[in-house]
Amino acid sequence: MKVAVIGAGGVGCFYGTRLLGAGHDVRFLMRSDLETVRARGLTVHSPDGDFHGPVAAYGDPAEIGAADLVICSLKATALNVACGLVAPCVGPNTRVLVMMNGLGVEEPFAEAFGARRVLGGMAFVCINRIEPGVVRHIAYGQLLFGHCLDDKAMTEEVADLFRAAGVDVVTPGSLKRARWQKLVWNIPFSTLAISAGGVTTQHILEDDGLRNLARELMVETIAAANGHGCAIEAEPLIEEMFTTTSTMGPYRPSMLVDYEEKRPLEVEAILGEPVRRARQVGVAIPRLEMNYHLVRMLDRINRGELEDTARNGP
Amino acid sequence: MKVAVIGAGGVGCFYGTRLLGAGHDVRFLMRSDLETVRARGLTVHSPDGDFHGPVAAYGDPAEIGAADLVICSLKATALNVACGLVAPCVGPNTRVLVMMNGLGVEEPFAEAFGARRVLGGMAFVCINRIEPGVVRHIAYGQLLFGHCLDDKAMTEEVADLFRAAGVDVVTPGSLKRARWQKLVWNIPFSTLAISAGGVTTQHILEDDGLRNLARELMVETIAAANGHGCAIEAEPLIEEMFTTTSTMGPYRPSMLVDYEEKRPLEVEAILGEPVRRARQVGVAIPRLEMNYHLVRMLDRINRGELEDTARNGP
Repeated sequence: MKVAVIGAGGVGCFYGTRLLGAGHDVRFLMRSDLETVRARGLTVHSPDGDFHGPVAAYGDPAEIGAADLVICSLKATALNVACGLVAPCVGPNTRVLVMMNGLGVEEPFAEAFGARRVLGGMAFVCINRIEPGVVRHIAYGQLLFGHCLDDKAMTEEVADLFRAAGVDVVTPGSLKRARWQKLVWNIPFSTLAISAGGVTTQHILEDDGLRNLARELMVETIAAANGHGCAIEAEPLIEEMFTTTSTMGPYRPSMLVDYEEKRPLEVEAILGEPVRRARQVGVAIPRLEMNYHLVRMLDRINRGELEDTARNGP
Repeated sequence: MKVAVIGAGGVGCFYGTRLLGAGHDVRFLMRSDLETVRARGLTVHSPDGDFHGPVAAYGDPAEIGAADLVICSLKATALNVACGLVAPCVGPNTRVLVMMNGLGVEEPFAEAFGARRVLGGMAFVCINRIEPGVVRHIAYGQLLFGHCLDDKAMTEEVADLFRAAGVDVVTPGSLKRARWQKLVWNIPFSTLAISAGGVTTQHILEDDGLRNLARELMVETIAAANGHGCAIEAEPLIEEMFTTTSTMGPYRPSMLVDYEEKRPLEVEAILGEPVRRARQVGVAIPRLEMNYHLVRMLDRINRGELEDTARNGP
């Protein structure tokens, strides 16, 4: 099967080389790492087995051409250019798997290529690109797949492709619900870690004020999800989130790492879109909205967008 | 009249030397600046006229002894030790003027010395201590006085003492209401300036999300004040706050300056106490409470209170 990986960061390289190892014709769209990978191949260090070798790397999606499966693993900050990069790889029978963070990431693809061929994927994996052409898989690796129209057969077909390559995949049935559920963790922990000044999950759990704020953010997020028909039972999920997080130790979410390394944050996909969807159905989300505006400003400052001509005062 | 100034920072030195210039026996309690002031005198640069000369500076309030008026101009962060420092200067007829920021700053004095002799003061002044023994008054200077039990005669008596020294003093009648009203500016601008990443008042006004958040924080603060019987009409005050602030340009509130210079913040007086009082009367203040927990954590981090043993992750 011909697979195009659009966005060859940690996630794209890790899962792409897994499919390559299973015998598929995998082609990677690369930007900054292109020359290095062409010269020295791609390296993935993993406790599940290393990969090292030449891969089919391209700088232009038109050179890849129509594929059977396109994996779009760009950052959500690139959502506005993602469809344009994917389009040259989409033929009449291509399926598009959107492995991006946050809410609303499948919609532009569904609009551009038709919802029936668009799937969404979430990676629960700890992975870093450590230098050009070198990726380190640290832990975990489960994927969660769903289909834009919840087409179970197509979801299982794509899931089986990954399973045959040794990847653990779950298919929970409702993609929308799964996307919201992931936000029930990301909003209180990834985004609060930033607005509270760069704290770990453990700091949030140990500070009574922040812990309670995290809980309230979960309650608001679940209320917004349920306003969109997700039917999530709040308390069991909240308990599960706290229990899981308490086993993580002093953990820095990837969004905080992005922030500290001055990379643009996926603010709209993780906070802005949930806020807009909550508003659509009239659910009150004062804390979620406040965190959106704070993190949005912190991201702007972080990227040097704000001029600073202040004078001091009383 | 014998006046003890407890807490000889910018505000204490500025108003203390005004009273000194009017012929009163003013004695200053100093800590870090004591030796410098004893050796070189105190200097206050001001557009209203400079002061330079020797002053009665002490390192121990017991050496000052009972005064007719005690001005307590310590930072609100020192509230827990303030009564102990003031006590040696309180005799049978002493009046205590609490010139500290935030809410709940008079109460410990009222409890210790009796409410009938305790007044509260707020300074609307732009002033900096620029080096040991040297204070620079930049602009403004109005004082606002009230009495713990709203005793109008005693308020006017103390106000007249300052007026005779050339200070502009207003006496709005309700000290409680005046304290809350000042918070209607401080909470959305001083504290949001910190949690939004170190922004000026102008940045808050120009960003739609933050501007609206500032408005919601004002609405919550006014609701809490009114829950305590302040009867503040929200919209006119909110409009006035925005109008006044828009004339300030890119202004850094003093609380933000404190934060940037790593000084402890008056978090409890400006945020914690309003939050607790709102809870007492069952007023919903989700954003105010969130900002309290965020700024509290930012202050802890700023003072190096948080250990940092984080590991990075997905």
